[in-house]
Amino acid sequence: MNIVVDIPNYEPHRWLEPIQRALSEHRVFDAADLNGVGLHSIDAAVVGWSDSYRLDRFPNLRFIQSTFMGVDRLLRDPTIDPAVPIARMVDPDMPVSMTESVLAHVLFAHRQLDVYRRQQSDAEWIERDQPLARDVTVAVLGMGELGRMAAAALRSVGFRVVGLSRTGAAVDGVEVSTSIDTVLSHANIVVNLLPLTDETIGILCARTFAMLPVGSVIINLARGAHLVDTDLLDALSRGHIRHAILDVFTTEPLPAVHRFWHHPQVTVTPHMAAMSTPESCVPVIVENLRRFDRGEHPLHLVDRNIGY
Amino acid sequence: MNIVVDIPNYEPHRWLEPIQRALSEHRVFDAADLNGVGLHSIDAAVVGWSDSYRLDRFPNLRFIQSTFMGVDRLLRDPTIDPAVPIARMVDPDMPVSMTESVLAHVLFAHRQLDVYRRQQSDAEWIERDQPLARDVTVAVLGMGELGRMAAAALRSVGFRVVGLSRTGAAVDGVEVSTSIDTVLSHANIVVNLLPLTDETIGILCARTFAMLPVGSVIINLARGAHLVDTDLLDALSRGHIRHAILDVFTTEPLPAVHRFWHHPQVTVTPHMAAMSTPESCVPVIVENLRRFDRGEHPLHLVDRNIGY
Repeated sequence: MNIVVDIPNYEPHRWLEPIQRALSEHRVFDAADLNGVGLHSIDAAVVGWSDSYRLDRFPNLRFIQSTFMGVDRLLRDPTIDPAVPIARMVDPDMPVSMTESVLAHVLFAHRQLDVYRRQQSDAEWIERDQPLARDVTVAVLGMGELGRMAAAALRSVGFRVVGLSRTGAAVDGVEVSTSIDTVLSHANIVVNLLPLTDETIGILCARTFAMLPVGSVIINLARGAHLVDTDLLDALSRGHIRHAILDVFTTEPLPAVHRFWHHPQVTVTPHMAAMSTPESCVPVIVENLRRFDRGEHPLHLVDRNIGY
Repeated sequence: MNIVVDIPNYEPHRWLEPIQRALSEHRVFDAADLNGVGLHSIDAAVVGWSDSYRLDRFPNLRFIQSTFMGVDRLLRDPTIDPAVPIARMVDPDMPVSMTESVLAHVLFAHRQLDVYRRQQSDAEWIERDQPLARDVTVAVLGMGELGRMAAAALRSVGFRVVGLSRTGAAVDGVEVSTSIDTVLSHANIVVNLLPLTDETIGILCARTFAMLPVGSVIINLARGAHLVDTDLLDALSRGHIRHAILDVFTTEPLPAVHRFWHHPQVTVTPHMAAMSTPESCVPVIVENLRRFDRGEHPLHLVDRNIGY
C-alpha cells in the first residue's frame, strides 16, 4: 500500500514519520514532496485541514482518512471523487479536550464572568444574583461523540441538560429532542457541537435566537458557518443574547477588521476548543489504514447522505 | 429566648421574618430598631458581615450565630466577649456555590482564557499548546467543607489535586499535606479557600510564589488579607505568576484607585464566589438557635485557639 500524507502547517516528522514507523511494510509519502513518485501508485491519503485539496492527482485513490472530526470541507471539495470512502478522525483525546472547553465556557457564562469582566473595565463593584447550576439549563446541540461526553460532564457539575439529536437516540440524564425549537425554549446557555451539513448550516440565526429566553449565552465550538454573524450582532445589541463565546468563524483566522474582535459581548478564541495531536491521532490513522489494507471497513466512515 | 438579628445591607424581611416565623414561641428583634427593647433581655445574636459589631450592648448575650462561614472579623471584634460561643455558617448551598466558582475559575485558567482574552484585545489569532486536565496539578489550600467538595469536583473533571490541610487528614483522591511548600511545588493552578487566622494571614506572598512553577495562576476566593498585594503585582510583572483571579480584597469594595482593577493579568470579581442566601441559611440558623435554647451544643462552633 502507498500512502500520501497531506497535512498543511504541521511538521511532517510529527505525522508522517510515526505513521511510516508503524506501517514499515508500506510506503508513506509527503504530499509536499512527490518528486519521482508515481501518482497512480497512491492508494490512500491522510489529509488535514486545507482550503484546497488536490486529491484528483491520485487517480487510484481508494481511501481518505481525515485528521479532523468535521469533514465538511472534504465533502464539498471538487477534487474528491464522491465514490472514495472518507473516514472522520475520532481520536480518544479529542472529546476529552472538547469537554474541558465546554465546561470552561459554560461555567464562565453560568457564573456571569462576562458581566463581571465588563464591570471590571469600569471599576464597578456590583454583586449579581447568582443561581446554582441545578437551576440552569444548558442546551447541547449535537449528541455525537463530543455532545454525549460534554453533556455527561455538564450533568455531573449539576446542570440540567437538554440535547439536540438527529436520531433522537436516548442519552443518559439528557432530555433529547430532534426539534431545535423544543431544545432551545428553556435554554440559558447553548453549546453548539453539530457537524456542518446542509441541515445545520446557519442554524444559529434570528429565528432560533428568538426561541431563547432573554439573556441567554451562545457558545459556538463547531463551525463558523453554523452562525449567521449579523443575526448574532443584532441579538447582542438588543440584549436578547447576553454574550457569545466563539471559537470558529466563517473565515479563519478571523479577519482583523471583523466586529467580533472588539465587541464587549463577544469572546473570541482561535479555533482551539479541541485540537487533535499526532500523539492521539496517529494510532487511529494507523489502525484505519491497516483495516483498509486488509479489505475491512475502516472505522468512522462518513455517510455522504447525512453529511458526516 | 430573645434574639437580635444584625445583618447590614440586607432586607430584614428576608432574614428576620422567616426566623421569627420558625421560632414563634421566641422573640426576634432587628438590631437597627431596638427602641423599647431591654438590651439585658437579649440571649442570642444572628450577625452578618460588618465593619463594626456593637455586641457589648447586650450584657447577657450567650450565643452568636454568624451568617458567614469566615468568622475572622467576629474573632477580632473588641465588642465581643471571647467567652461567648460563636457558630460559623455552614449552609448546604454554600459549598455548592463555591465549588461552581472554583470549577469556573480553574477551567478558565486551565484553558488559558486569560491569555486568549489579551490576544483578543490585540486581534491576535494564535493557538497555544493546550495540556489536558490530567496533566495539570491544582493546589487547593484548605481541606474544610469548601476545599473537600471543590477538590472532588476538580478530580472528577480530571485534574490532579493536591491539598493543604491543617490536620493532614486524608481526603479521597487528593494528595494532602500539612506543608505549603510541598503543596505548591508542582501546582499549575492554586485555589485559596483557607480560613483567615494568625497562621494563614499573608500566606500568598513572595516566599510562597517562589515555590510555584513559572506561569502559574493564583485564585483567591477566601480573604483579601491572605494575599500580599504588592508581592503579587511583582510576581505578575515578572511573569512568574501568569494571572490572578481575585474575589476578595483587604478593603471591600476594592477602592477605585487600586491597581488590580485595570491590571491585564488580574481578574477582579466582587466577593461573589459563594454568596449565602436566606433561603439556605435560615434553616441552619433556626436549628442552631433551638439547640442553644435547649442547652445543647450548637453546630459548627468556632475554636478560638485555631481561629475558625
